Amino acid sequence: MDASVTPIPDEPNLSLVQTTDFFYPLIDDPYLQGRVACANVLSDLYAMGVERCHNMLMLLGVSKEFTDEERDVVVPLLMKGFQDTAREAGCLVTGGQTVVNPWCTIGGVASSVCTMDKIIMPEGAKAGEVLILTKPLGTQIAVNAHQWIDIPERWEKISKITTVQEVKAAYRAAELSMARLNRIGAELMHKYKGSACTDVTGFGILGHADNLAQNQKERVSFVLHTLPIIKDLVKIAQAVGNMFQLLQGYSAETSGGLLITIPREGAEQFLKEIQEREGCPAWIIGDVIEGDRGATIKDDPTIVHV
Amino acid sequence: MDASVTPIPDEPNLSLVQTTDFFYPLIDDPYLQGRVACANVLSDLYAMGVERCHNMLMLLGVSKEFTDEERDVVVPLLMKGFQDTAREAGCLVTGGQTVVNPWCTIGGVASSVCTMDKIIMPEGAKAGEVLILTKPLGTQIAVNAHQWIDIPERWEKISKITTVQEVKAAYRAAELSMARLNRIGAELMHKYKGSACTDVTGFGILGHADNLAQNQKERVSFVLHTLPIIKDLVKIAQAVGNMFQLLQGYSAETSGGLLITIPREGAEQFLKEIQEREGCPAWIIGDVIEGDRGATIKDDPTIVHV
Repeated sequence: MDASVTPIPDEPNLSLVQTTDFFYPLIDDPYLQGRVACANVLSDLYAMGVERCHNMLMLLGVSKEFTDEERDVVVPLLMKGFQDTAREAGCLVTGGQTVVNPWCTIGGVASSVCTMDKIIMPEGAKAGEVLILTKPLGTQIAVNAHQWIDIPERWEKISKITTVQEVKAAYRAAELSMARLNRIGAELMHKYKGSACTDVTGFGILGHADNLAQNQKERVSFVLHTLPIIKDLVKIAQAVGNMFQLLQGYSAETSGGLLITIPREGAEQFLKEIQEREGCPAWIIGDVIEGDRGATIKDDPTIVHV
Repeated sequence: MDASVTPIPDEPNLSLVQTTDFFYPLIDDPYLQGRVACANVLSDLYAMGVERCHNMLMLLGVSKEFTDEERDVVVPLLMKGFQDTAREAGCLVTGGQTVVNPWCTIGGVASSVCTMDKIIMPEGAKAGEVLILTKPLGTQIAVNAHQWIDIPERWEKISKITTVQEVKAAYRAAELSMARLNRIGAELMHKYKGSACTDVTGFGILGHADNLAQNQKERVSFVLHTLPIIKDLVKIAQAVGNMFQLLQGYSAETSGGLLITIPREGAEQFLKEIQEREGCPAWIIGDVIEGDRGATIKDDPTIVHV
């Protein structure tokens, strides 16, 4: 499960839903990095259908390599980005812990106290349903390709098939996607009767689809037929060999989208509503079929360049 | 406050009490270090009078400097110590986050959902009450002196006034003290009507007493007349000049005791009951008087060598 669910002994109807995550900065804008870190922590609650975070703690490691000036500029921006995103999610950052560390780290702890009907346990998928994904894939490749602009021996390998402008555009798209909350997705999951969900992070779309399939009560499997990917990243991934395993479904994502199983009849309406409310598309990317609780990508999947 | 208290919007009587802390290992026994880390996190709940932790998350940074063998030995012991102490406190470690980091780190997130009567806000001290401390001071000096055994130029400075055996005994006492939960202290604080509390950590006994005094509703100050200190550490602190500011009240503690303001009439009974139940003494170390919300140590305080 993406978050722990602990019944409260003295309050028979209530559970404490919690998750924690922290990582090392991967983008060069500290404010956006703070936003991404907060969206990433919250995403684990949203993946459980929990729309409301009640408390957020921030975990910050300030690099001992920072100069005084770097520290005075970077740390307040990281914190502001984190706090602004928490506020957007309707919760406050009430505390946390800050340490000095060799590497800069940022993350948090998101908690919610709620009745079980607010939680969608990731186990109810049924054959005949479809899979929805709410953010495009490719964030890790976008971040890496952007770093390669400054590393000549790396850049050389992709300079024939892309441009600095294309890479910067993909990177920008990835930044905004990672900083976006999965909150509306969680809300719509309730409205359209999503039956199971996870968020796509370090194991890639197929890794997480497979984990989710294994956790289902019914004997179902997932077949992915469509991979929505940030524009220009497929050719970059292909130019560097199989390093990212993007089309195999294993490229890591940070603060990725929700992968939701949902009855077919509401799926198109889900896509329409999330597009209207957020201005961002989601996609039907696969089918739930009878099977032995695994996930595969169909041969020659449809690639949607986003 | 030692922990954040967040009202739950849909549950008017309930609050979410949370705290997080993590740090770098300071003792060389990984199992005990795990116990200390967990006791240290929980201590912030206990300082708020919250006796019951409902959920614990573990935050672990595995040093990238570890050899494979070091990692395979150290990490499971750290985790086992942490989990055993959580179990002793009546909660489970349901999740967390593990990363690779240059430095090893260990810590956690403790959460409780409770009604406001379970919480003792750190603001009710009244003139005429006394201050109780539930663990002796000196953990930082014990840890440092123990490291100096292996550093000849350091050891030389204290070798005339102490022995390896004395330092090892003080270190062992510090380890056990840091690994001990403040849970019974929190329980007795309710029973004997403690009016305010904090736990003694990085700012030393006087730093935390001063913070607590500043937070009081009534115009009160704290005067400390007694300093209970782990045996043999006073002379070591004195031999290295004023490096630790132990007798000035500023020597940092890890997983220190509860500092509680409590009506005078129940104080002796508190000491008696904690001694009976835990086999460890506590001490009346000061008085609450009328004043401008500060804390001081009386001239020539009584030193109790524990």
